Amino acid sequence: MSEFLSSWNDGKTKQTILNFVQSVTDPNQASFVPVEDRIATLDNDGCCWNEKPAYIQLFFSLARLKQMAVEDSSLMEKPHFRAAYEGNMDYFARLDPHAGGDVQDLLQVIFDTHAGMTQDEFTTMVQEFMTSAKHPRFNVPFKQMIYQPMVELIHYLGENDFKVFLCSAGGMTFMRSVAEEIYGIPRERVIGTNISFETEMTEEGPVILRKPGLIEPIDDGPGKPVNIELHIGRKPIFAAGNSDGDLYMLWLAQTGVHPSISLLVQHDDPEREYKYNIGSEKTLQLARERGWTVVSMKNDWKTIFKFQ
Amino acid sequence: MSEFLSSWNDGKTKQTILNFVQSVTDPNQASFVPVEDRIATLDNDGCCWNEKPAYIQLFFSLARLKQMAVEDSSLMEKPHFRAAYEGNMDYFARLDPHAGGDVQDLLQVIFDTHAGMTQDEFTTMVQEFMTSAKHPRFNVPFKQMIYQPMVELIHYLGENDFKVFLCSAGGMTFMRSVAEEIYGIPRERVIGTNISFETEMTEEGPVILRKPGLIEPIDDGPGKPVNIELHIGRKPIFAAGNSDGDLYMLWLAQTGVHPSISLLVQHDDPEREYKYNIGSEKTLQLARERGWTVVSMKNDWKTIFKFQ
Repeated sequence: MSEFLSSWNDGKTKQTILNFVQSVTDPNQASFVPVEDRIATLDNDGCCWNEKPAYIQLFFSLARLKQMAVEDSSLMEKPHFRAAYEGNMDYFARLDPHAGGDVQDLLQVIFDTHAGMTQDEFTTMVQEFMTSAKHPRFNVPFKQMIYQPMVELIHYLGENDFKVFLCSAGGMTFMRSVAEEIYGIPRERVIGTNISFETEMTEEGPVILRKPGLIEPIDDGPGKPVNIELHIGRKPIFAAGNSDGDLYMLWLAQTGVHPSISLLVQHDDPEREYKYNIGSEKTLQLARERGWTVVSMKNDWKTIFKFQ
Repeated sequence: MSEFLSSWNDGKTKQTILNFVQSVTDPNQASFVPVEDRIATLDNDGCCWNEKPAYIQLFFSLARLKQMAVEDSSLMEKPHFRAAYEGNMDYFARLDPHAGGDVQDLLQVIFDTHAGMTQDEFTTMVQEFMTSAKHPRFNVPFKQMIYQPMVELIHYLGENDFKVFLCSAGGMTFMRSVAEEIYGIPRERVIGTNISFETEMTEEGPVILRKPGLIEPIDDGPGKPVNIELHIGRKPIFAAGNSDGDLYMLWLAQTGVHPSISLLVQHDDPEREYKYNIGSEKTLQLARERGWTVVSMKNDWKTIFKFQ
């Protein structure tokens, strides 16, 4: 069918994407969209990289807590350090506010592991983790846990003069630490949630420190259009997500003056990846009502991970 | 001397800029900087466009207040609406916190004129103002009040694969409304100060509303490195400013691993523009200590405004 998107199975979903891109890039069609308005925004967790059995960033947090507890055993008196040291995943599953957890306990885990260092130091930590720590089921470094069809889509959009942005509730610096290498997406096109930054003036000049605290709004749900406005200043004409946290962004693409496409990725392949739909029910319903394109990982993707 | 930067007089300043750009783009030199790290950050008010006798954005605010007072005379009971209606510039000069004004009064002016509408509505207002309202001394539309040498510098950097960002204490959406047209800088490369944004879900989908409130930190002084980190994720190797609000940014360029250049534009030409140095004394001192390049508008710029 096409030399593009070779990890996508031929069929209606792939054809819909190809047709859309061809129609907005053909100057002889009424659907043509000028280059400056070719904005794509893609969710990351569960859309471009794996998020099960837990967010990759949670695995990073646990590894940091454990390492800190090893280096300073007095930290073991705090339950989250002890739980990480003992590999007690249930403890952290219970922190999830959707599972009745206290958001303050979850934030404490984030602040203890993501704040108190410079941006450069944090970036190095993340790069080391993504390269050396391995996924518990697939036993490959986390930075290989990316969906090959989405990597091809990112490149295909770029070749058609789209500016492709990640727009995810995950940590902005966490994603930026590897996004150029694994996706070819430059740092300034990665939008995410942030802990507070502070400039400290030193004798060697200004240094950016990571501080406990969140920059509002977090990049999820209604916060996605706000952060898209702050970082891009244009509405996407191509949006992709996989959960209800993406609902606002997927709809935002339909509110502009140009043709648009919104993709909802469905996790329906327990053999090659995972099968779950908790937290995406509303968006699936809206996808049907508003004509969004539902992507089945099982049926639409020839390959999921490159290493498979 | 060169076909580039034709509005710059030949001399040491122009040669320093040309030499820097040539040295970081020549792959045979140790000073070579890879494309992804060629980041330039330029202040806007007083660096790329005129800021006297008052910030262009203040003229916009007064025009808005006046128009609102004309449409609703009950607003005349509020002193800032009355002052704007009567053209009382002294009233607004006294709001400046540096002149002993109350910052809350100044914020009220901003919130009354910059909030309470959608992003699209605000952008249209700014575009109309920049096209139709005229500078009181030069009698040209405000969007012509841009420094031709800086426009050439922006293009020259772009041709050398720099990503050029505006980074200004001025309003981000205010600048974005015209930056593509007047500078060729796309919206996502304009960083500034913001009032709060909020997503409202309507039957037609999410809409971004402008609300009273500021997104911290404002993009001035120590806030500039923070906003550069949020929007770019890299340190600039080329930075330009004209006041103490740029001090942190100009120094930031020197804290990276690559060669860098920091420019301080001096307003020293009362005939063709304005002469003032209040609020840039610290930065001028530091420029001498740290080897930054001081640009004299009088001596280094052949042309200041294209219309002259």
